[in-house]
Amino acid sequence: MFEKEYDVVVVGGGHAGAEAVAAAANMGSKALLVTMNLQTIGQMSCNPAMGGIAKGQIVREIDALGGYSGIVSDKSAIQFKMLNKSKGPAMWSPRSQNDRMRFAEEWRMMLEGTPNVDFYQEMVVGLLVKGNRIAGVRTSLGLDIKAKSVVLTNGTFLNGLIHIGEKQFGGGRAGEKAATGITEQLVDLGFDSGRMKTGTPPRVDGRSLDYERMIPQPGDQFPEKFSYLDTPVLKTQRDCFMTHTSKEVHEILKEGFDRSPMFNGRIKSIGPRYCPSIEDKINRFAEKDSHQIFVEPEGWNTVEVYVNGFSTSLPEDVQYKALRTVRGFEKVKFFRPGYAIEYDYFPPTQLKHTLETKIIENLYFAGQINGTTGYEEAASQGLMAGINAHLKIHDKEPFTLQRDEAYIGVLIDDLITKGTEEPYRMFTSRAEYRTLLRQDNADLRLTPKGYEIGLASEERMRKMEEKERKSKEFVEFFRNTSFDPTDMNQILEEVESAPVKQADKMFKVFSRPKVSMEHMLQLKEVSDYVKERNIDREVMEQAEIQVKYSGYIEKEKSNADKLQRLENIRIPDNFDYTKLKSLSFEAREKLQTIRPVTISQASRISGVSPSDISVLLVFLGR
Amino acid sequence: MFEKEYDVVVVGGGHAGAEAVAAAANMGSKALLVTMNLQTIGQMSCNPAMGGIAKGQIVREIDALGGYSGIVSDKSAIQFKMLNKSKGPAMWSPRSQNDRMRFAEEWRMMLEGTPNVDFYQEMVVGLLVKGNRIAGVRTSLGLDIKAKSVVLTNGTFLNGLIHIGEKQFGGGRAGEKAATGITEQLVDLGFDSGRMKTGTPPRVDGRSLDYERMIPQPGDQFPEKFSYLDTPVLKTQRDCFMTHTSKEVHEILKEGFDRSPMFNGRIKSIGPRYCPSIEDKINRFAEKDSHQIFVEPEGWNTVEVYVNGFSTSLPEDVQYKALRTVRGFEKVKFFRPGYAIEYDYFPPTQLKHTLETKIIENLYFAGQINGTTGYEEAASQGLMAGINAHLKIHDKEPFTLQRDEAYIGVLIDDLITKGTEEPYRMFTSRAEYRTLLRQDNADLRLTPKGYEIGLASEERMRKMEEKERKSKEFVEFFRNTSFDPTDMNQILEEVESAPVKQADKMFKVFSRPKVSMEHMLQLKEVSDYVKERNIDREVMEQAEIQVKYSGYIEKEKSNADKLQRLENIRIPDNFDYTKLKSLSFEAREKLQTIRPVTISQASRISGVSPSDISVLLVFLGR
Ligand SMILES: Cc1cc2nc3c(=O)[nH]c(=O)nc-3n(C[C@H](O)[C@H](O)[C@H](O)COP(=O)(O)OP(=O)(O)OC[C@H]3O[C@@H](n4cnc5c(N)ncnc54)[C@H](O)[C@@H]3O)c2cc1C
Ligand SMILES: Cc1cc2nc3c(=O)[nH]c(=O)nc-3n(C[C@H](O)[C@H](O)[C@H](O)COP(=O)(O)OP(=O)(O)OC[C@H]3O[C@@H](n4cnc5c(N)ncnc54)[C@H](O)[C@@H]3O)c2cc1C
Repeated sequence: MFEKEYDVVVVGGGHAGAEAVAAAANMGSKALLVTMNLQTIGQMSCNPAMGGIAKGQIVREIDALGGYSGIVSDKSAIQFKMLNKSKGPAMWSPRSQNDRMRFAEEWRMMLEGTPNVDFYQEMVVGLLVKGNRIAGVRTSLGLDIKAKSVVLTNGTFLNGLIHIGEKQFGGGRAGEKAATGITEQLVDLGFDSGRMKTGTPPRVDGRSLDYERMIPQPGDQFPEKFSYLDTPVLKTQRDCFMTHTSKEVHEILKEGFDRSPMFNGRIKSIGPRYCPSIEDKINRFAEKDSHQIFVEPEGWNTVEVYVNGFSTSLPEDVQYKALRTVRGFEKVKFFRPGYAIEYDYFPPTQLKHTLETKIIENLYFAGQINGTTGYEEAASQGLMAGINAHLKIHDKEPFTLQRDEAYIGVLIDDLITKGTEEPYRMFTSRAEYRTLLRQDNADLRLTPKGYEIGLASEERMRKMEEKERKSKEFVEFFRNTSFDPTDMNQILEEVESAPVKQADKMFKVFSRPKVSMEHMLQLKEVSDYVKERNIDREVMEQAEIQVKYSGYIEKEKSNADKLQRLENIRIPDNFDYTKLKSLSFEAREKLQTIRPVTISQASRISGVSPSDISVLLVFLGR
Repeated sequence: MFEKEYDVVVVGGGHAGAEAVAAAANMGSKALLVTMNLQTIGQMSCNPAMGGIAKGQIVREIDALGGYSGIVSDKSAIQFKMLNKSKGPAMWSPRSQNDRMRFAEEWRMMLEGTPNVDFYQEMVVGLLVKGNRIAGVRTSLGLDIKAKSVVLTNGTFLNGLIHIGEKQFGGGRAGEKAATGITEQLVDLGFDSGRMKTGTPPRVDGRSLDYERMIPQPGDQFPEKFSYLDTPVLKTQRDCFMTHTSKEVHEILKEGFDRSPMFNGRIKSIGPRYCPSIEDKINRFAEKDSHQIFVEPEGWNTVEVYVNGFSTSLPEDVQYKALRTVRGFEKVKFFRPGYAIEYDYFPPTQLKHTLETKIIENLYFAGQINGTTGYEEAASQGLMAGINAHLKIHDKEPFTLQRDEAYIGVLIDDLITKGTEEPYRMFTSRAEYRTLLRQDNADLRLTPKGYEIGLASEERMRKMEEKERKSKEFVEFFRNTSFDPTDMNQILEEVESAPVKQADKMFKVFSRPKVSMEHMLQLKEVSDYVKERNIDREVMEQAEIQVKYSGYIEKEKSNADKLQRLENIRIPDNFDYTKLKSLSFEAREKLQTIRPVTISQASRISGVSPSDISVLLVFLGR
């Protein structure tokens, strides 16, 4: 049925798969998306939200490179917030609430609108392998689909097992089948596999809640958005609400602990430390009498509500009894209970920086299958895998991002270098150069790269260049333009900052912590400049950050450059560590399996000490 | 978790279940919809269209009674056609193409907007029965939900088995799980069950088709709609396209016959005679070299396309090879292959006219589970089951429709009286009084009844009364108003009808076959009347039919009235046919199992002859 050979076949239409197929197709590959259900493309398995701390930066990075997640999020958003706005710009993190149905629909429409993407609905049950090279996939109907490269993005579906209280049943998500066959074959081929778990809270009927008893959580007054392209900005938004658990709620939950698969040993695999279930929180933070619960609408019109913070796999009667004791939930009606799911993953140290597997050529893994958690982590891996699958079969250089270039670089480097024993989620603290990896400059950092490999569009590149030029000019304007001391002192008085004695360049005062762009705009010269040059929000933000944080940014850049030198010392592909007896035993073992590409990567492997690095450097003649 | 007892629990959120839960809730019952996946409420399993011959009349009837299918169809329509417009008004049949995603979304929104409807996502695996009375349902999590009455609408999900070529796997629909447990328990309780099958064609990528090589099938120039309420009328529409199979296509298909589950004995159950698979058509109509194929878009924006007329369970390689030989499909790409599905049903002779089961009190069956096929057939049964479930537990009279009142009456009477050995689908020929059961007068026939039982709204009733009054007055106007012979002869000449000699009442000329409302509107008096009284399309249509077809209608009414007399002769509940030795053996057996309620129903049972009826009449003292 599929006589022709595809360039890239992507298995799975979740966040990773959708980005992968779009990227490969947009770069010119003939690409096929095979997924179990074409009606659940880009399905949000858990909370109806995109972005958040560090994750929002990733969405901006995906967008800057020419991926779709930002556009889809903007088109389906029902609320937008810039988190951490009170902290420095490295911490600013965009986050949207989304209409779950619209989100999936937009994804499908975006992919349908991508010329090189073909679709096929079926379960893949095996891989076609020739020697140590991928040749295609086999479906449950016994259909062989030939491919030059394959990207696996099976998410939580591989041998998925759903747990609620003492019940368990096979499934990839509530109401969906698990996928079988693939893990077994990969293990036969020599891959290591492991088991992880994750969980989700109950969904409830918004009509049964008393919002008067909760605290409204509105979106930003001036909502921004993810995409650097012209996606719509929200005009109206839907509120979320906040409430709390209490001692009483915890007591009720504890009654179910002996029937909890988490505590009675039935679930053995490790869950996401930073998205713990409510029973986990009670257990781990026994001293806390109360935890926050965020009540998030599932869309513009639906009454269905997501109970963020109440993820649980306790028996459903316990879930119900406990939730009814939460303020505002006294009369709650369930749409469905929370549950936990266990699934297979493949320790990501088995991958190269391109996300290609080390064992099978042209086979890529992306998303939850690599032991990560979260839509954004999955989507960014999908994007990188799709890009590299395309580049490889077209005999082009691989495309990777360094740790000082993007959160995506940090993510992938962490995964393949350190592996992960528990579901990996991104944090700003994982990035040593987070002052460089801001949400405001993802386009400046990455769009030229995306453009160069043929993914980011001409339009995107043009917009980025204009933003770069305009913000530079605006900074220059502040550097070169003097203020009138009387005008300026009026502003300084307002913000309780020491007055100036005489005229000086604007840059100097603007650098003061208390003075913001908003204040500067009170100066006629500044507001005239903005009007005349048609300066938009993004440019103003960029200029402000460059004025106020240039010191920090420069410092971090120079740190990064220093380390870059180690990054440039490459280790030969077939380097034999077993011969280097002066390495510690652990380092030798780890280096031999992980096979770092550079000295810098080697230094990040846990178990490899600075003295091991010295040995290596000496041996490599540095 | 569900401490309280529901009035009505509906199992399954297909067309039947959605109507059932809406009806019961709107009449005042506390109702719960339990379904396997809350994201597939009102899912169209097969073609993205509603209505059609006889089925369109049913949608209008559902709407007239206060059901939702008409409204949902109107809101999600992408094309509308009144079929058979060239025939008499008894044959006029409205049909819409629908956006599959929008349709399901509208259903969900309608139900969410219905105050008494609660939702719960899970699989029901058993019934709670006390004595011979229903007490609730049990879910796969082991949850017991108490209920005064239960409506089962499991569709094709009960032990569903999907076939494609030589492969088969469990499932209720492609990509969805089958439901287990219920059939087995019902059989234990004494129910008979059987097996049926149905099939669906491949879905393909519209971008791969050559529409230039097909015949466009646009919607009506002046599209109408289903609902009698103020739903939107289509302003733009999407075209369908027509193409044909050929000898060559048939030859290719035949190559797969030995691997066809239909012909190699693997599928034993009977499929819908009037929605045959393409292999069936080739087999049964061996003399035909070509069959029509309608290419139907799946929605406003999606590229997915439904290949109507090409339903098949042949191996997917054969489907593909054959379809590529169809004109316009030379480069077709599949989204997914066609398949057949076998499922359990319960012979509907086990039901009363209210759709309550005879064995278990307050347990109702509606939809495909009763051996029917089609969304409309399912939806109308759901409506009637929901209504009667509500009425029964509130100690009210049952609500049934006679064969001369509605297609819904014909449908249910056929089912419970005659049963069905093959998937039952409605046709105009099944209705002996089809001149009465028109799409234009469903509101006049049924809205007063729907209003009386508390389902149809005040607004609906008011609209219907206004239409009735206005059309009566308009007919009176034609009866009482004389025309000017010169003006009239101008029209008559135009339609090549004999001229009149002198002035006369308009009614007389309007009754002529060639003269339509459009012609009458050329008379100034008529067009003035229409303008002054604000006469809308529905009223004009109604008046026209009443003028032109009054003769036929009167005759059929009097026939119906005559038969009504038999309908009124009730047979006592516990009547013992075994004692009536003068009945034929077959009649005695059938009457004893089916237990007709009236002499008229008895007369429709196959195997009961007119002489058996005479015996009964004598015995009942008539
Ligand atoms: C119950 C649950 C709770 C979660 N909770 C959290 C949370 O609290 N925090 C958080 O950050 N993340 C959470 N997640 C994880 C988040 O949903 C995932 O990280 C993200 O969706 C992963 O994206 P993906 O593309 O890797 O896989 P998925 O989104 O899971 O998509 C996988 C896709 O592949 C398809 N597929 C799988 N196998 C096959 C096959 N063999 N053939 C064809 N198609 C196949 C599936 O149909 C699906 O479309 C949760 C997930 C689940 C299921
Ligand atoms: C492959 C296929 C092809 C078809 N082809 C045609 C055709 O050519 N022509 C035609 O007229 N009709 C066709 N039909 C039939 C048409 O789809 C049905 O007649 C119609 O959908 C029946 O409506 P329903 O409400 O009875 O059931 P469905 O629409 O099947 O809905 C059943 C619902 O019940 C839920 N459910 C089932 N069991 C359980 C349980 N135990 N617990 C909880 N929820 C449950 C399901 O999730 C689903 O929501 C086809 C159907 C299929 C599947």
